Amino acid sequence: MKSIPEKIKIKDIAEKAGVSPGTVDRVLHNRGNVSEVSRKKVEEVLKHIDYTPNVYASALASKKSFSLLVVMPKYLSGDYWEKMEFGIARAAREIIDFRVSIEIIYFDQYKIDSFCQAMEKVLKKTPDGVLLTPSLKSVTCDFTCKLDQKKIPYVFVDSFVEEAHPLAYFGQHSHQSGYLGAKLLFTQKSDLQEIAVFSFFHVGQKPSNQISMRMAGFSEYVMEKRTGCKLHRVTLDAENPDQNEETMRNLFFGNKGIDGAIIFSSRAYVVADFLKKHNLNHITLIGYDLLDKNIVRLKDNTISYLIAQRPEEQGYKGIRALTDHLVFKKEIKPVNHYTPIDILTQENIDFYLEF
Amino acid sequence: MKSIPEKIKIKDIAEKAGVSPGTVDRVLHNRGNVSEVSRKKVEEVLKHIDYTPNVYASALASKKSFSLLVVMPKYLSGDYWEKMEFGIARAAREIIDFRVSIEIIYFDQYKIDSFCQAMEKVLKKTPDGVLLTPSLKSVTCDFTCKLDQKKIPYVFVDSFVEEAHPLAYFGQHSHQSGYLGAKLLFTQKSDLQEIAVFSFFHVGQKPSNQISMRMAGFSEYVMEKRTGCKLHRVTLDAENPDQNEETMRNLFFGNKGIDGAIIFSSRAYVVADFLKKHNLNHITLIGYDLLDKNIVRLKDNTISYLIAQRPEEQGYKGIRALTDHLVFKKEIKPVNHYTPIDILTQENIDFYLEF
Repeated sequence: MKSIPEKIKIKDIAEKAGVSPGTVDRVLHNRGNVSEVSRKKVEEVLKHIDYTPNVYASALASKKSFSLLVVMPKYLSGDYWEKMEFGIARAAREIIDFRVSIEIIYFDQYKIDSFCQAMEKVLKKTPDGVLLTPSLKSVTCDFTCKLDQKKIPYVFVDSFVEEAHPLAYFGQHSHQSGYLGAKLLFTQKSDLQEIAVFSFFHVGQKPSNQISMRMAGFSEYVMEKRTGCKLHRVTLDAENPDQNEETMRNLFFGNKGIDGAIIFSSRAYVVADFLKKHNLNHITLIGYDLLDKNIVRLKDNTISYLIAQRPEEQGYKGIRALTDHLVFKKEIKPVNHYTPIDILTQENIDFYLEF
Repeated sequence: MKSIPEKIKIKDIAEKAGVSPGTVDRVLHNRGNVSEVSRKKVEEVLKHIDYTPNVYASALASKKSFSLLVVMPKYLSGDYWEKMEFGIARAAREIIDFRVSIEIIYFDQYKIDSFCQAMEKVLKKTPDGVLLTPSLKSVTCDFTCKLDQKKIPYVFVDSFVEEAHPLAYFGQHSHQSGYLGAKLLFTQKSDLQEIAVFSFFHVGQKPSNQISMRMAGFSEYVMEKRTGCKLHRVTLDAENPDQNEETMRNLFFGNKGIDGAIIFSSRAYVVADFLKKHNLNHITLIGYDLLDKNIVRLKDNTISYLIAQRPEEQGYKGIRALTDHLVFKKEIKPVNHYTPIDILTQENIDFYLEF
């Protein structure tokens, strides 16, 4: 039998440290007027007992308010980004008693200008903290330099930018998630010959930071293990379904040897729907993210695996990291909190609920 | 741009409901002296705005203390159950300000008597709430009947018992996790002929509730899809490594056709170490749970997949459900909070950290 002890009292700490309770109190609240020797003794005891201050009571008593800004892609209901916002809203509800206001600035993820404008808005508002999806690497770096100068803490979600200095990152190791996509494709069908590799963006624009890194990971696996395999790289357009249909017709009907496909954006259903419509069920398809439309195609076996990255958790933890830092004065652990790379199949999808 | 609103004030609620702030206050604190019409108006507004009371402030102000008992298997460092206790301890730290004491009663999971004795201890102590791993179904039901009579709320973790009435369950759908084990085995090697099916318990004792349900799920998949496959059912003994070595020698050297194996307890490494030692690398092995020793064998490819069930999360959420119910008077959602059935491979194991 084992007891998990209840909260230790100030007088217990004082006793262990051999100082007065008043001294402990002054150390805890950083009020000075304590000798270096006494401070060290108290701090050693606190460290030894893994002391946690009553952060709720302190924060409730404070009258300071905090403004957070979130910068994320705009979305339609059912899109990937909706889940990120669910997580943000959940965190917002939990901290509702602590005077934290959260505002979301949306941008068009397929337009570089729109992302730049969102950054400008943030700089004008000088918030206390920022949650940011670093959609394009170069633009992000220019922006975070300015946040660094103003000493405004920021947290990345979705994808990471090595050159920046965020308080924390919550998201996948995108390169490894592309590598795993390749591995699952070849596990599902070990003798694959030709693979269609899809990405999704406006023609003339750049692929996102996330998609570029996943592609690099996928390519690494193929280079390492399956150099004989032929890759067909294809771009679909976010706003042009007719053209996408045409692109896929040319691709799949013009290359009868294609027996595998992978798509690096969240819209795997676009490819899956095409395969289903044309009865191309000899093609093994791997996709990313749990949009409802993707899940339908996972369940009917058009998609063999979906790889998921917990967007709700990213949004939730991102906001909590900012508030833990700003409101509760907690130390935030090292910068990379990679979220798991979750593998979903027909068999486990029904039990995969974020939170 | 969108604001996630800050906490609504009592006077705002009063305005929306068309009543006085005093009336709102009386409704919120259930103090009576409010007409039925006014109460309804206020409740409608509260429902509409998704009002959450300041549960922290209320609970901090209360002087009531709560005692929780945890009943779980005893373990050695590195065992599966250690992680469950990490989660319990984490929850304990978070609620340290709210006068909740937690005591753990351990039992020997391979001895029925020990489990029964643990239940008896709980009944003598009459705690405010119980977190329980229902290791054996029949014993659990006798025990939970008595808790029901005493109106002591209890939460199950690890495996579920349909006949009981827990406040909540946090754990896997064990049957489906066995079914998925079979699917992964046949995906990894599509032409499997003979499979060794391992479980782990003391001879003369019953397999646990968890293991029985996983086995049933596995058998269902094989019956549905691969009836031609030959199964060798083998029991290993938790405390007899020499005998296990002998059992595996007889099995694998006496049945050269075995090309796949699955083990339903957390000790997959026992089988993996044997396969590795004897260079039986043509045998595909699937295991459960992320013991360090299992992870070593996943990384060196002796184990193809590990299926994980988030024991830390189970322990953490179990305690939080009890405290949300007892301390914060929150409503606990329906009984089954199935944890995801996580699929781990060489490629994603490094990013899989609970919490």
